[in-house]
Amino acid sequence: MYDAVCEVGHVTVVAPVSEMSAVGHAITIAVPLRVKPYNKNGSLFGYAVDGTPADCVKIAYSAILKEKEKPDLIISGINLGSNSGINAIYSGTVSAATEGAILGIPSFAISLATYHDPDFGLAAKFAQKLAGIVIEEGLPQGTYLNVNVPHVPEKDLKGIVVTRQGQAIFNDGYEMRRDPFGRNYYWLTGSKINIEEDECVDDRAILQNKISITPIHYDLTNYSFLDKLRTWNFE
Amino acid sequence: MYDAVCEVGHVTVVAPVSEMSAVGHAITIAVPLRVKPYNKNGSLFGYAVDGTPADCVKIAYSAILKEKEKPDLIISGINLGSNSGINAIYSGTVSAATEGAILGIPSFAISLATYHDPDFGLAAKFAQKLAGIVIEEGLPQGTYLNVNVPHVPEKDLKGIVVTRQGQAIFNDGYEMRRDPFGRNYYWLTGSKINIEEDECVDDRAILQNKISITPIHYDLTNYSFLDKLRTWNFE
Repeated sequence: MYDAVCEVGHVTVVAPVSEMSAVGHAITIAVPLRVKPYNKNGSLFGYAVDGTPADCVKIAYSAILKEKEKPDLIISGINLGSNSGINAIYSGTVSAATEGAILGIPSFAISLATYHDPDFGLAAKFAQKLAGIVIEEGLPQGTYLNVNVPHVPEKDLKGIVVTRQGQAIFNDGYEMRRDPFGRNYYWLTGSKINIEEDECVDDRAILQNKISITPIHYDLTNYSFLDKLRTWNFE
Repeated sequence: MYDAVCEVGHVTVVAPVSEMSAVGHAITIAVPLRVKPYNKNGSLFGYAVDGTPADCVKIAYSAILKEKEKPDLIISGINLGSNSGINAIYSGTVSAATEGAILGIPSFAISLATYHDPDFGLAAKFAQKLAGIVIEEGLPQGTYLNVNVPHVPEKDLKGIVVTRQGQAIFNDGYEMRRDPFGRNYYWLTGSKINIEEDECVDDRAILQNKISITPIHYDLTNYSFLDKLRTWNFE
């Protein structure tokens, strides 16, 4: 993706030192962060932060980048595994884009719907195109995009659709195992079930080999329930 | 709070082993979880999980509680420090209630607006009352409540209001320090600025010594931007 988006503008890479799956919107406040310049082929390639994706955006904006370098666009990804439906709320990749939106910078998260043998080519190419579009069109304050790319060769891509966040949930469970010392431990298991048929749902679009683009925001208020809740008697 | 809500029904306590501030919606997938019974005065008081608040709800539901013990209500808290406005998205306490809502169980998060010398009395008393109300009224699928209690004596409480999530953000910064080995490290600093005047905003309600109740959901879709986004040319 770095190579692809470099054709759109100057790129600064800021990334967590290690994989940060399912960290959600964690930020680091109990311990200090460290930032290490990361070199490639003898020259500065980016910065490694010993924190979460959200930390990376915050510290890039406030401490790594100089005032005149404040970004026109923040791209978070490419994540291994889709962040469609309910996955969006567990996603460190999406949360980095959330931080971008909070800072008032047009932002999108991009994820590839596979965990194995990823070919990032199509996702990188689409990130490049979308970067140009977002810079030109802009995004409303507090709104950002959650993009999910199916893991197919470009010739098998069936389109690009604007979607809403799917409602399908996981049939969670924990598998209990016993360690060599006789103590129990638990692994989270489960997969998404009952994915909605509606083709304007992100999970469904990916299954149909389409790129899904969901506009999201970080206002969790359920406005449709405010009036009803005001009829409750709390006194 | 345990003492207070025990008067409403049978309570099972499941809590993280250690403090989990700003873990957001982190869930533990890279390492297994462990669950330890926690005794108090010689009898079982609850369960300690070496994970996040969201992990606690997931594993309580799927592994700790038996089928016939599935909860009628999940209460997450009392959190030290308010989870109003943008804090809701960083909050492990709120995320535990999110997991409850995902599981289809009426849930609320409750937080006390202080970090120092907390008196949990008023918050516990309100949690008890709200528990009874929520069980009676129910909540729509996927909707849960984010409750914030000001840190005042009960006689100074100015009311209970239904609110929306405030939009005020932090004036973030990182303070750079040097460790004893001459290496730099960064502490996150900052406070919330430009809190809206609207008394139906959670942050404002707390400043007015009112308990705020914000109905929230985990559908991040910005529906108001869908139509506009569909006019963009992605091809």
